[in-house]
Amino acid sequence: MHEIGRRQFIATTAAVAGGSVLTGLAGRAFAQAPGKKLGVALCGLGSLSTNQIAPALQKTRNCRLAGIVTGTPEKAEKWQKQYGISPKSTYSYDTMHEMAKNKDIDIVYVVTPNALHLPHVQAAAAAGKHVYCEKPLEINTERAQQLVDACKKAGVMLGVGYRLQFEANNQECVRLAKEKVLGDLKVIDANFGFAIGDPTQWRLKKDLAGGGSLMDVGIYCLQTTRMLTGEEPVWISATEVKTDAVKFKEVDETVSWTMKFPSGVITNCMSTYAANGLAGFRAGTTRGWFALDPAYFYGGNRGRRSDGTEINIPVADQFATELEDFAHCVISKRPTKVSGEMGISDVKVLMAIYESIKKGRPVTL
Amino acid sequence: MHEIGRRQFIATTAAVAGGSVLTGLAGRAFAQAPGKKLGVALCGLGSLSTNQIAPALQKTRNCRLAGIVTGTPEKAEKWQKQYGISPKSTYSYDTMHEMAKNKDIDIVYVVTPNALHLPHVQAAAAAGKHVYCEKPLEINTERAQQLVDACKKAGVMLGVGYRLQFEANNQECVRLAKEKVLGDLKVIDANFGFAIGDPTQWRLKKDLAGGGSLMDVGIYCLQTTRMLTGEEPVWISATEVKTDAVKFKEVDETVSWTMKFPSGVITNCMSTYAANGLAGFRAGTTRGWFALDPAYFYGGNRGRRSDGTEINIPVADQFATELEDFAHCVISKRPTKVSGEMGISDVKVLMAIYESIKKGRPVTL
Repeated sequence: MHEIGRRQFIATTAAVAGGSVLTGLAGRAFAQAPGKKLGVALCGLGSLSTNQIAPALQKTRNCRLAGIVTGTPEKAEKWQKQYGISPKSTYSYDTMHEMAKNKDIDIVYVVTPNALHLPHVQAAAAAGKHVYCEKPLEINTERAQQLVDACKKAGVMLGVGYRLQFEANNQECVRLAKEKVLGDLKVIDANFGFAIGDPTQWRLKKDLAGGGSLMDVGIYCLQTTRMLTGEEPVWISATEVKTDAVKFKEVDETVSWTMKFPSGVITNCMSTYAANGLAGFRAGTTRGWFALDPAYFYGGNRGRRSDGTEINIPVADQFATELEDFAHCVISKRPTKVSGEMGISDVKVLMAIYESIKKGRPVTL
Repeated sequence: MHEIGRRQFIATTAAVAGGSVLTGLAGRAFAQAPGKKLGVALCGLGSLSTNQIAPALQKTRNCRLAGIVTGTPEKAEKWQKQYGISPKSTYSYDTMHEMAKNKDIDIVYVVTPNALHLPHVQAAAAAGKHVYCEKPLEINTERAQQLVDACKKAGVMLGVGYRLQFEANNQECVRLAKEKVLGDLKVIDANFGFAIGDPTQWRLKKDLAGGGSLMDVGIYCLQTTRMLTGEEPVWISATEVKTDAVKFKEVDETVSWTMKFPSGVITNCMSTYAANGLAGFRAGTTRGWFALDPAYFYGGNRGRRSDGTEINIPVADQFATELEDFAHCVISKRPTKVSGEMGISDVKVLMAIYESIKKGRPVTL
């Protein structure tokens, strides 16, 4: 969900991020390891790196932007100037293995198109660097597993960029579900989509993206259902609709899917590249409901509970928070909650959704 | 959706209904037929009649409460006193055929359990009375067709109680969709449910209700998709979840279904008797979105558009409005927009949803 970042998200993020006060989690993390700032190299300098992650790294207290990997010399020059990155910490995708000799870099954050995650994570891991990787982890389960295996083999940590796992309003909803504050969770309705622009972008190419709206934004809805239920889906029925066969020749335009969970929770989800305005979820419980709208933005996520309570917790930069947590995990050798295994589980479900679409019938997991 | 009327709806209705100012449609209708008030008999004196329809009839300008049909003598006595209804306009289900001789009654509003609509409509039509019938029209397509045929054979008008077809906020959304104010309609997400109380009520008995949450509140979501698209669905995939096998032994607890329409619109819907908090819809368009939350209440329906415009049109009593319109149709021999054919179409779709659940796969229409 990088596309609409510049336009819609920055304003709301600025409004709520305020200053440098970070959330409790990251604050505690840093307190345990004063003085040490881990060097983070950004691999892939697209809009997410440019507009979100690099600025976020200026706010983190236990890590810093220390290197870049890009295939575009002009971008390298611009970033070197803007962030004071030395040429020796600047790599191309072909030279990133040389990072092994660079003690300034501890973590590589892979922000390239989905199908490039595997080679870039393999290269970073082989160079002995810990890896933070954007979601979805890869374009199919086998490649996601290979990616996780590469990190295990190299003995480096792997984290997946599920920023909402650290976002206070989403996590407040997790608490409401787990503690049954409004009764038992029964149903979830979650949707995320936007009208995608540039028809030439990689998100519309199957080789690079693996799929369309489902892979890019549908994964947020899946994460919502995973976070709120604490379970894996056991039954999935999905379908696709394409209204622009040219633009969406290679990937899905709109996907609708239903999942059932062992506890009996049922979820309706939709992802789309065809329309704006779906970016939230609502959970129905035996005694009421809670909802976030928006739930998935870089900032400004907020919602309500059926008892009238607003859910509107001020949150720091989501990328700063997730990176501070991962840096702390590296420093303290603590496992991250956004593990490679979670990344694989999500890819498995995404593949099952595509399988249901292809077969035209429900699938069980 | 009668159950939560007393508790949740009355307050909001009172807040927006204000005084006696009715909507333009009904106002115009009455202007064309001054002086004539049609007599309406209520058939079935449950909570909907008690709390919504009878009070609404006190506000209408072209019709009035003129008779009752009930199987409970205590109710008959109470209503006679409260509304000044004479014993000669008081019937039981066994005597309602005698209504043929009662010139005080022009319209019978059938508000009995779903599976009793057919015999009660047949009786009213055979007595030469025009019929307004609550939705769903009946519990299966064959019975719905027989109901429509009975009215045709008797030469009386039939209207179906789709109150939101006259509700200004819902109709404003129909306008937004039809006029493409925010671009082309692409996706709709619509949900309605509540945690049902009394386990002995008729809504949980298959013989009387025909089904559970889908028949009772799911039909509202179906109507939303019908109103916004102006189309009939051509593909349906549905599933059911039951978490209380005792309470919901006979009928569905929660139903999730996806529909595709000829224009390429795709809709996710959910109905439930297990949770509160789902009572709205959101439509995603190429340039934005519009949404009502709540969309389905007796009053207080309101929403927003992606361009910041609020959708919050003050509306009069929904039952008064629909009844004024039907009375006008009778007076002016104008066809009603809430026709028996629409009622049959909805029942057909509801049956297709159950068929998809039973077969465990999508069905085409």
